[in-house]
Order: sequence, then structure tokens, then C-alpha cells
Amino acid sequence: MSPIRLAIVGLGKIARDQHIPAIARTEGIALAAIASRNAALEGVAHFATLDELLASGEAIDAVALCTPPQVRRAQAQAALEAGKHVLLEKPPGATVSELGPLIAAAQAAGRTLFATWHSRFAPAVEPVRALLAGRTLRSVTIEWKEDVRVWHPGQEWIFEPGGLGVFDPAINALSILTRILPRPVFVTSARLAFPANRDAPIAAELDLADAQGLPIRAELDFLQTGPQTWDIRVDTDEGLLTLSSGGAKLFHEGATLVDEKEAEYAGIYRHFVDLIRRGASDVDLAPLALVADAFLLGRRTQVESFEY
Amino acid sequence: MSPIRLAIVGLGKIARDQHIPAIARTEGIALAAIASRNAALEGVAHFATLDELLASGEAIDAVALCTPPQVRRAQAQAALEAGKHVLLEKPPGATVSELGPLIAAAQAAGRTLFATWHSRFAPAVEPVRALLAGRTLRSVTIEWKEDVRVWHPGQEWIFEPGGLGVFDPAINALSILTRILPRPVFVTSARLAFPANRDAPIAAELDLADAQGLPIRAELDFLQTGPQTWDIRVDTDEGLLTLSSGGAKLFHEGATLVDEKEAEYAGIYRHFVDLIRRGASDVDLAPLALVADAFLLGRRTQVESFEY
Repeated sequence: MSPIRLAIVGLGKIARDQHIPAIARTEGIALAAIASRNAALEGVAHFATLDELLASGEAIDAVALCTPPQVRRAQAQAALEAGKHVLLEKPPGATVSELGPLIAAAQAAGRTLFATWHSRFAPAVEPVRALLAGRTLRSVTIEWKEDVRVWHPGQEWIFEPGGLGVFDPAINALSILTRILPRPVFVTSARLAFPANRDAPIAAELDLADAQGLPIRAELDFLQTGPQTWDIRVDTDEGLLTLSSGGAKLFHEGATLVDEKEAEYAGIYRHFVDLIRRGASDVDLAPLALVADAFLLGRRTQVESFEY
Repeated sequence: MSPIRLAIVGLGKIARDQHIPAIARTEGIALAAIASRNAALEGVAHFATLDELLASGEAIDAVALCTPPQVRRAQAQAALEAGKHVLLEKPPGATVSELGPLIAAAQAAGRTLFATWHSRFAPAVEPVRALLAGRTLRSVTIEWKEDVRVWHPGQEWIFEPGGLGVFDPAINALSILTRILPRPVFVTSARLAFPANRDAPIAAELDLADAQGLPIRAELDFLQTGPQTWDIRVDTDEGLLTLSSGGAKLFHEGATLVDEKEAEYAGIYRHFVDLIRRGASDVDLAPLALVADAFLLGRRTQVESFEY
């Protein structure tokens, strides 16, 4: 079977750090082109925009959209209409409602649409999901605290409308939460801290629950200096399970159950190849819907201006 | 067939103005009880809360939840678990994500869940839907401008988190829009004006589109004095269609196509009786998802404080 010829659209930090190495390690898929206004890759066909790539007749089968979420919908639609499979970086778009027409477009075109949630491919996620399926849960606490200046240096789009602010990282926690819990969850209250000069929150506190009243608390901060925290703790009838380091590690009380090097994007590309071969799509909107609900329901406070 | 015995939960303005007269006019359903902390109705069994009603053993088959959206989810869950059919006033909840578990609960209980959108039952809605199905659409303009002090006097919950602010009326326009257009729509940008002392917007401007790029513009205002405006104008290849007075009237250029007295809640209760008899549910989250997206994507401005 000849490999899937993939174009990356948007050659920024996430494409260079994660996508390109993962594609190189994945059987069945190969990087064939780049569409990026400001950057190119030695030895790979280059186009300034996706439209130019699609108009060129360059032989590609699929595109990975690594552009900011505000522009992905139009790109995904154009790619699907041109008969390409589409992989969406997280979050899959700037709104929940724009995804419905894309799902329909993928079905109409007979192509794969994959809305990725990279944290779901962290090594401890499936193990903790299996453990939680057999336990009584008492409470869940999410702490997702990182330094935006370290992880998103100069990325102004994150604080633009649709950029999600602190929810850009925190949606990773919500993507894990919605994968590992046995029942769907919903937001019951939210407090959002908006910098005076920005259109997206820089910190937030959420309360969530499931239909059985499981209390879930999330503390999110984008200004954490010193140690960075990406932890989900689940208190169960058989002790405390702590998913740490963004899902790379799992502890049960004092004992280490999982501690592996992360390989999230390799998992993403293996799944994308599998989806294409099976003629399937994978679009779960639950994490983005929770963020939209947090904005809808959230009590807003204004905090001091933020500059990178 | 004996009539469905219905309890109204939350005997406020909408219950008195609309639900009670509509129930009286609808065959197959009868008002059997009221659960309301502050109000009662002569000659109808009364309980302070839904929980007391459910615990009492009073013979009811269904509940209509006319309480504010922030408390409806827990009430709907309790009623479904007690084997009652549930009618939800609009909006169906305070968040999109809380509806998924309710849909599942209704299925598990074999009961009807009906998320009402009363404006969809306005007399000109189905006629304009039929007309638009056969035309090429050029643009849509929504103007939804009313005086909150007249229509929601003293209703503080509207400006609480989850109360939607100006989207409490404007979601009616979105419920019509999503019914009459041939394709699903999504929000592409939003500007939200929050009073300095409130947690929900008092005015907003939205841009929406469908997958074919149809431009849709919505202007929403909660401080409109003088003439009140609830209009949706659709420019088509065969002229301008104007849906006016919240859906009661339809004009094509100068000509009147529909001008009828509204009977929205009679339509709601006929549909509820029909759903129960067929063992079906009707829950369309599209209007609420569009509002959540507007909050998610919206650029916020602060405007002067609002007091009733």
C-alpha cells in the first residue's frame, strides 16, 4: 500500500516540534508538501497557502491543519471539497457549530475528518480509563497551570476572540477528562479572569458534574512560573489516582503505575492512517462544547493587562 | 384516551401568560398540579417544590419546567427518573453539555423530553421555510430589539451567569433561523456588550454563515424603547422576504403573505401530546449552541451599568 501523501498547513511551533517528527516515525504516511506563508522546509514542496497548494495539482491525499483555530474551518472545507482527508489540530475550530457542516462535508466527500485531541494519546490515559471503569468515583480535581510565556511565546492569536486563552492548554485536560470518566460531564459554574487588554481569559475556575453528581473542580492558570502542573486527581473508593505530567504518569496513592515517555503525536498519526484505511472519521466535540459552556455560564472578572 | 396529567413547575409570568391558557385549549392534556414556592392557582393541587410534588404521590404524567434555566437540569433529571415526561421552556438549560445526559435519561426511562422553542410555532415560520427551500439566498438580517424593562420586569436571573441576557429573547430569532434555512449555520464573529454590573450581555452583534458562505447578520438590543422589532429579512433571488413581529407576519416585498394571531404555546402543547403518544423526544440544541459559540468567540465591551 503506498503511503498517504500529507501536506502540513501552517508550519509553526506545533508542526515543527510534533507533527514532522511524528509523521517521520509513522508507517503508511509521508510528508509531501507544506503550505505556510512564512516558513518552508528544505526538500519539501512549498506553497504560500492551502488554496495555492490545492490549485497546483500537487499530488496529496490529506492535509494536517496546524493553523490557528480561527481560520481552520474554511481550510478544512476547501480541503474536503478538493477530496483530501483532513486532520485538525486541537481545538478543532473556533466554535462548536462550525463543526457540523464539516462533518457533513466529510461524509459527502467520502473522506476522513479527524479532530485530534493529542492529550488523549498520552501513555497513562487508557490505563486510568480502564481503572476508573470499575470503581466508585468520589471527586475529581484538575490543576492545569503553565506559563504562557514559555509554552506559547508571542502567540497573540491565543488571546484573540476564538483563541481560547487559558483554555487552549486546559482543553487538553478536558479532552482527557471526557475520555477517562464513565459518564458525560457538564459545566455547573465558571469564573473567568480576562486581562483588561485581552479577549480571552488568562485564568479560570470551573465546577463540573455528571448526572450522578460527581463533583469535578478545575483550576486553570496561564501565569504559573516555577513548577508547571498538568494533573488530574480522581478520588475513588479504592484510593487516589493521580494522572500527572499531562497524562504521561499515573500514580495510585504512593505507587507509580505508569511513567512513560510521551509519544502523543505518533499515536495521532497511527490513528489517522487507520481512520483513512477504514474510511472512518473521528470528531468528538465534547471538550470544545465544555469550553463554550464555560464562556456561556462564566462569571467574568477583569484582571491586569497581559503582554508577552 | 384519558388526558395527560401535567404539573407546571415555576408559576411565573410565562406560565401564567402562556402555558396555562394553552393547556386549557389543548385536547389530551390537563393541568393537574403546580409546584411553585411563591405562587399557587385556585383549585389546582399545590406543592412548594418539584421534589415535594414527586414525593407526594400526586398522580401526574408530565411536568412543564417554567423555572429559570439555571435550575432546570436537576429538575428535569429528577422528573425523568420519577418516570414523568418533561417539557422544557426555552432555553432548554444553562449549558449545552447538560442536555446530553438528559437525553440519555429520557431514553433510559422511556419518557418524552421536549426542548421547546416557542417561536418555531409562530404562524409564518413554516410558510417561510417552505418558500426558502426553493430559492437562492443572498443574505439574512436579523433585528431583535426589545425593552427588557417591559418584557422581563425585575427578572434579575436574566443577567446572572447562565441567564443569557439579550440572548434570552434573541435565541428565539436563532431558533427560527435554524428552522427556516436550508443548511446549518455557525457563528463567525460576535461583539458582546456587558453592563459593568452584570454577567450577561445587554446588546450584541453577530455574524453567521452557512457552508456556502451565506452572510447572516444579527443585531440584538435589550434597551429598545419605542417601537419593538423582531424581524428576520431574507434577501433571495426572487425578492425580499420579511418575517416580522417574531414570526407572526410574512411579507414578500410589499405584499402580505401571512398575518395571523400568534398561538405558539397551543402549537407547543399539541406537539407535546403528540410526542408523548408516539413515545418520541424532540431536543434540538442548535440555537443554544450558537449562543454558546457567540460567548466563546465574542469580543467583549463594557457598557454602562443596568438597573431595572
